[in-house]
Amino acid sequence: MKHKQKKKRKKNNRIKKTGMAPGMFLFTGEQKTDKTTFQVINFDENEIEENSFDNIEAALAKVDQTHKTSWLNIDGLHETDNIKRVVEHFNLHKLSGEDILSIGQRPKLDDYEHYVHIVAKMFSVNNEEIEDEQVTIIFADRLLITFQEKQGDVFNGVRERLFDAVGQIRTRKSDYLAYALLDSIVDNYFITIEHFGDLIEELEIELLEDPSDEILPRLHEVRRQASYLRRSVFPLRETVSRFEKLELPYMFKETKFFIRDLHDHTVQVIETVTVFKDAVGGLLDLYMSSVSNRMNNVMKVLTIVSTIFIPLTFIAGVYGMNFGNMPELQYKYGYHITMIAMAVLTLLMIFYFKRKKWL
Amino acid sequence: MKHKQKKKRKKNNRIKKTGMAPGMFLFTGEQKTDKTTFQVINFDENEIEENSFDNIEAALAKVDQTHKTSWLNIDGLHETDNIKRVVEHFNLHKLSGEDILSIGQRPKLDDYEHYVHIVAKMFSVNNEEIEDEQVTIIFADRLLITFQEKQGDVFNGVRERLFDAVGQIRTRKSDYLAYALLDSIVDNYFITIEHFGDLIEELEIELLEDPSDEILPRLHEVRRQASYLRRSVFPLRETVSRFEKLELPYMFKETKFFIRDLHDHTVQVIETVTVFKDAVGGLLDLYMSSVSNRMNNVMKVLTIVSTIFIPLTFIAGVYGMNFGNMPELQYKYGYHITMIAMAVLTLLMIFYFKRKKWL
Amino acid sequence: MKHKQKKKRKKNNRIKKTGMAPGMFLFTGEQKTDKTTFQVINFDENEIEENSFDNIEAALAKVDQTHKTSWLNIDGLHETDNIKRVVEHFNLHKLSGEDILSIGQRPKLDDYEHYVHIVAKMFSVNNEEIEDEQVTIIFADRLLITFQEKQGDVFNGVRERLFDAVGQIRTRKSDYLAYALLDSIVDNYFITIEHFGDLIEELEIELLEDPSDEILPRLHEVRRQASYLRRSVFPLRETVSRFEKLELPYMFKETKFFIRDLHDHTVQVIETVTVFKDAVGGLLDLYMSSVSNRMNNVMKVLTIVSTIFIPLTFIAGVYGMNFGNMPELQYKYGYHITMIAMAVLTLLMIFYFKRKKWL
Amino acid sequence: MKHKQKKKRKKNNRIKKTGMAPGMFLFTGEQKTDKTTFQVINFDENEIEENSFDNIEAALAKVDQTHKTSWLNIDGLHETDNIKRVVEHFNLHKLSGEDILSIGQRPKLDDYEHYVHIVAKMFSVNNEEIEDEQVTIIFADRLLITFQEKQGDVFNGVRERLFDAVGQIRTRKSDYLAYALLDSIVDNYFITIEHFGDLIEELEIELLEDPSDEILPRLHEVRRQASYLRRSVFPLRETVSRFEKLELPYMFKETKFFIRDLHDHTVQVIETVTVFKDAVGGLLDLYMSSVSNRMNNVMKVLTIVSTIFIPLTFIAGVYGMNFGNMPELQYKYGYHITMIAMAVLTLLMIFYFKRKKWL
Amino acid sequence: MKHKQKKKRKKNNRIKKTGMAPGMFLFTGEQKTDKTTFQVINFDENEIEENSFDNIEAALAKVDQTHKTSWLNIDGLHETDNIKRVVEHFNLHKLSGEDILSIGQRPKLDDYEHYVHIVAKMFSVNNEEIEDEQVTIIFADRLLITFQEKQGDVFNGVRERLFDAVGQIRTRKSDYLAYALLDSIVDNYFITIEHFGDLIEELEIELLEDPSDEILPRLHEVRRQASYLRRSVFPLRETVSRFEKLELPYMFKETKFFIRDLHDHTVQVIETVTVFKDAVGGLLDLYMSSVSNRMNNVMKVLTIVSTIFIPLTFIAGVYGMNFGNMPELQYKYGYHITMIAMAVLTLLMIFYFKRKKWL
Repeated sequence: MKHKQKKKRKKNNRIKKTGMAPGMFLFTGEQKTDKTTFQVINFDENEIEENSFDNIEAALAKVDQTHKTSWLNIDGLHETDNIKRVVEHFNLHKLSGEDILSIGQRPKLDDYEHYVHIVAKMFSVNNEEIEDEQVTIIFADRLLITFQEKQGDVFNGVRERLFDAVGQIRTRKSDYLAYALLDSIVDNYFITIEHFGDLIEELEIELLEDPSDEILPRLHEVRRQASYLRRSVFPLRETVSRFEKLELPYMFKETKFFIRDLHDHTVQVIETVTVFKDAVGGLLDLYMSSVSNRMNNVMKVLTIVSTIFIPLTFIAGVYGMNFGNMPELQYKYGYHITMIAMAVLTLLMIFYFKRKKWL
Repeated sequence: MKHKQKKKRKKNNRIKKTGMAPGMFLFTGEQKTDKTTFQVINFDENEIEENSFDNIEAALAKVDQTHKTSWLNIDGLHETDNIKRVVEHFNLHKLSGEDILSIGQRPKLDDYEHYVHIVAKMFSVNNEEIEDEQVTIIFADRLLITFQEKQGDVFNGVRERLFDAVGQIRTRKSDYLAYALLDSIVDNYFITIEHFGDLIEELEIELLEDPSDEILPRLHEVRRQASYLRRSVFPLRETVSRFEKLELPYMFKETKFFIRDLHDHTVQVIETVTVFKDAVGGLLDLYMSSVSNRMNNVMKVLTIVSTIFIPLTFIAGVYGMNFGNMPELQYKYGYHITMIAMAVLTLLMIFYFKRKKWL
Repeated sequence: MKHKQKKKRKKNNRIKKTGMAPGMFLFTGEQKTDKTTFQVINFDENEIEENSFDNIEAALAKVDQTHKTSWLNIDGLHETDNIKRVVEHFNLHKLSGEDILSIGQRPKLDDYEHYVHIVAKMFSVNNEEIEDEQVTIIFADRLLITFQEKQGDVFNGVRERLFDAVGQIRTRKSDYLAYALLDSIVDNYFITIEHFGDLIEELEIELLEDPSDEILPRLHEVRRQASYLRRSVFPLRETVSRFEKLELPYMFKETKFFIRDLHDHTVQVIETVTVFKDAVGGLLDLYMSSVSNRMNNVMKVLTIVSTIFIPLTFIAGVYGMNFGNMPELQYKYGYHITMIAMAVLTLLMIFYFKRKKWL
Repeated sequence: MKHKQKKKRKKNNRIKKTGMAPGMFLFTGEQKTDKTTFQVINFDENEIEENSFDNIEAALAKVDQTHKTSWLNIDGLHETDNIKRVVEHFNLHKLSGEDILSIGQRPKLDDYEHYVHIVAKMFSVNNEEIEDEQVTIIFADRLLITFQEKQGDVFNGVRERLFDAVGQIRTRKSDYLAYALLDSIVDNYFITIEHFGDLIEELEIELLEDPSDEILPRLHEVRRQASYLRRSVFPLRETVSRFEKLELPYMFKETKFFIRDLHDHTVQVIETVTVFKDAVGGLLDLYMSSVSNRMNNVMKVLTIVSTIFIPLTFIAGVYGMNFGNMPELQYKYGYHITMIAMAVLTLLMIFYFKRKKWL
Repeated sequence: MKHKQKKKRKKNNRIKKTGMAPGMFLFTGEQKTDKTTFQVINFDENEIEENSFDNIEAALAKVDQTHKTSWLNIDGLHETDNIKRVVEHFNLHKLSGEDILSIGQRPKLDDYEHYVHIVAKMFSVNNEEIEDEQVTIIFADRLLITFQEKQGDVFNGVRERLFDAVGQIRTRKSDYLAYALLDSIVDNYFITIEHFGDLIEELEIELLEDPSDEILPRLHEVRRQASYLRRSVFPLRETVSRFEKLELPYMFKETKFFIRDLHDHTVQVIETVTVFKDAVGGLLDLYMSSVSNRMNNVMKVLTIVSTIFIPLTFIAGVYGMNFGNMPELQYKYGYHITMIAMAVLTLLMIFYFKRKKWL
């Protein structure tokens, strides 16, 4: 339910934009956080420093692109003035500004020569619904800017590695950092994927053991989600592929090995999701087959009962007739013979059904 | 209904053309407006002027390609002489003339070297039917010509931005203007798409809550429309892609960033429509499943009622026989015992059905 | 029926060829005309002359390739000696000769350097059956040769334009003429396509309004035809595409614009036919759904009648038993109370079915 | 049956090879002939000579590669020593040796620079089962070697043309001969294809006229065969395509035209087989639909009979009750009125079913 | 069951990695062996020596890359320190280290310039479940390192050929050895494939002869496995294809012929598995059809019995009515005439059903 409402709101905003000039600063998502916050991390091989701000000017003043590599993270997109300020300060293209604020885009990588603009999506599972959040990563020479819809923890691993100086991440530049962030986003997908895999497995077991009518809307819902998930992760492959092929002065050859690895992970995510989609399709077939099977069994019970008792009832009806001249009625054992004949008929029927494997 | 009639008329015109020379001026659409009208907008960075005419010669005289950029908009295509006059005046290829008047074409971009010919489609929703209108955009150095089947408001946003001088649109040339118009057409698709999405959602809720027989023709109709919409927007991707790759003296590199953005939007439209197509397919499966389910339930009711009462009726039939020698009939409590036996049998049946989960 | 017989005969001829040398002159179609006829049209910008012959030598003598452009049209392929003579006279490759006579080929374009060999198909509708005819177009410098299975009128439009000097067709050379003929063939497809579209629309209306059992073989037949049509027009796209890419001294750049336009038409034909194929698939689904629906309704009637009357019959059966001691039978209003009880039971059932929406 | 056993035996041999070095001489097919036989044909434009041998050394001694073009044909592959001897004598790669003996490979063309190795498949229809035979064609400068599993007649046409000197085949070299053999193999496919087309047509007529239960396993079998045939001919396209693109000193440009023609035939074979596959799918749908239809008709009969007689039986049951006070029973025309009422009810029912089009 | 648990454990480990730096040494599989063992084989054309170790340092000391080609095989991956030591010793990229330990990857080939990293999968059938094991092959100049999850026998064939000096394998270098190992893995697939083919054949026979309800979950399970198998072998084609295209100083041209052959085998595996997937789909259709057929037969029995006896019971009911004035009841042969009429009615019914082919 929640998911559908969100989708609708997005679409409405998309429509408000109709007829506007490209490059306008209009936020098309729903507000997910109260306050926009800013973190600046300046680091080089030796030093690292992190500062948090709730004011864009203070944050921009802290960015140090000359001696160090600077990472500016912005949580919250609903205050579009902040975004406008960032776009102007770093001389970004106005289409970048529009893209940062346009929630519901396909993942993509745009090369603006003096900087690279990456759009990615994060997923989380909330009340059985898959929710997504758009993340923008912009990197230039010695500069990395990230935009998130709300405070999240997906970048914490990278932040910690920066401070711990583990994996020599601090000897690298903004291109590696951009890779590291994308990598942690893709790693994060596996949590959603596992949740989804569990869901499908549950449905499968239920279907094979005890299929009920109410499983149909659930299957339908899961199919919709699998379809949505697949569509959302699919463009990521091309995004990462273009990342790998970028030829820019601030892209180091070294990083390519890592992006190739990221590419492998992305393909694995896409394949797993494709498998899920097929699996849900298989479950629907299974459901249809088991409905047919059950109907078959219902029909068999009806047929067996009817086939046995309708002829017997007919015989009883015959001897219930009131004709004046019905000699059998006067036979001493007429009744008993009739009852025995009925029993024999019943046994013949049962034998017939046994042979037909209906019993 | 209306939609089908329109389609048929188009086809008939297409057939009238059979055997004619290519490049003939024959209008294959249906007349959607009474009068052809012309607007000329001449602008440069400093000045802008708009004039409306109902006479082609006056309009052509006003076009100023030397000092300014000139935009000639023509609403109404049924008076083919006007189109012929425009084609000759601007030295367009005669195939261009034919294409402007051939309604029902696929979106495409043709590069005639001294000018570019773009065919696009606009959609509107009228009485639950999707209607489309063909728009031709021709741009050359400092010249833009647009042809619409009838007066519309999709270009108003661009016109207003020209007058407001918002987004620096007036500093740009005809290539940017062509982009801006295509962009506003694609933006406009989202309205149709939202209508369609709502329709599908309604059908989905109805199907899950209260599926009736009459939903089948509606599903069929929606599938036809989804299929039609998808087919109509699909060639747009290639059109925009060729726009992006054009190398012409009057195409500015700057504009490419914007066309790339337009390309992203187009892909998004196509994906959404593809999703709709899949969703309608899913709804049809859901409908079939729920029909099967309902049949199953109908069968269960029949089977339960028959299975309980047919044996009971048989017993009643037995004791309705008129044999002279039926000792049970004379037992004092024969009737009561029989009734109790029937009740016990009924309870056993109910218990059996409970265990089979049919009750 | 007729169609199938034709197909079979073709196959048999194909088999007769098994083991023969390539390039043998064997006609694999069925004879469609009594007499082979020849027309020669010689034209340049100023003059045009048409002659008909029933003798190949006379026709060849008339071909004037030096001063004018010459078009030799041959109707009727069963007299293979004529074809052999043409092939030898114009020094065509012997595979060309084989291809002209091999009916049932895929549309294709073969470039033999000093000439181009195009195979195309024409369709006509005869007694609800789609019939096809193979047309071969060979063009070289100042020379065009066309081969048809029988006299047809598809080339009349082009012939008339040549004589009327409309569209400046006479200022152009054999490459443009080849284009013009292909264009008129593709234009001709729209007639078959419209017939087919009407057929599908009829079936759709019938299915939605009054589906009967006999519609199934008709649906099956239409699907077979849609499938056949699609397969037949599909290779045309590649043929036209290769035509567009030809680089030959006697191909003029000017013509390319027209071939591009032809390519657009071809794609439109293919798309329409693909749509038909999908539409027929949709109709089959619709048919299956409506069969299920009808079965559902049949079942409901059976279930309602059975569920209401089987219990009532049981009650009647009980009071039809002949037990000596059945106190109710002696009650004054026993009969009336029973009848009222039955009525109440019936009303309850009806109420139950109403609530289940079965009534 | 036979087919399945053959398949299994092949697989078993394939498994025996597991873990063996590549290039080992192991025959993985089943023995189809008693004795290996060898034919050597040496020819040039003027002379031609054929000799048959049952001994490999004698045959090799006869091969004359210096003055003439030599064709060595080997029938029978189970005596692997012969193959080993040929491989060594002509200095073939050991993978070639392995491939000649590995039955059940996909058609392919391998270029070993000093020679070309082509694997193709021949089909024959035996007892309604499609059987295939692997043919290897190796050609080098002035040398052609062919390997068949058993004596066959598919190459007879080529052999005869060599002796008849028809089609100037003797003026050409080994590359043309390789083409001619492949061409006669592909021509041969049309016989199998025709058999298959007839089978499908028979099934279609039977399905439309008189569908019985036993048609299902036959449909399933035909689908399996269509699927198998399609899979077997599909790789041939690539094989021929690579043949066309070969650039070798002993490949003549002239031959390319012929291979292009062979390519067209191959595509036609693949398309026809694809059509068959679709047709079989259509037949399965048709079968399912007709099963549904028949079920519908069965249900209608049941429903009509039940709906008419169950209420009537109920009425009869009511007047069969033994209540003491049932005034109607004493009416003079009670019985006749009841019978008339029943008749009227029956007519109403019949009218209702007529209106529902169930009768 | 086992399979599902294994899959889940893998996923959980994958999730544990979320947020970690790339290149960390974390084993994501399940432990399949107690102890890690090491084998080192040093060989050149003349000499060969094999040593086994349970200590990594001893094994590394034995590796002789200078005078001979050295093959280091490692069985068991759970002791990640060993892997770390190997990675450091041979100066492998840390992403290689991560990949060796990440179980559940797609087959791939990564070129790290001074060495090549290949990931492949082996399959075995255990209790009707397909189990897979990941194998990593790393080869550099004169060096080959292989990593297996547990001791296996798939490499034994290659090892034996090394010692037997069969096939001149010892004259070749590490690239050929890498090929030989991949080749023996692919050869090994045919065992799994045969098992799978047998399974499908069994199901097919059962379905055609005696389909029962319990076959549905088995079909579903086989479909899941076919889908899994196909997905697992599909990326192998690209892996081998990249192997073939590698241009490295320690890759010999000679080896390319062999890799091309391996490529053919891989394609054959993929095709066979694809055929299996289609075959399982066909079986599901067959199952659904046979369920429909059986339901049809059940319905026929019900309809025949009901249609015959319901009217007869009605007649009996009529003459069971207690009206005072029912003249027929007093006829002498009323009863007999009624019985004969019933018999005639029954015969008519049976004749009707015979004509409808229901009997």
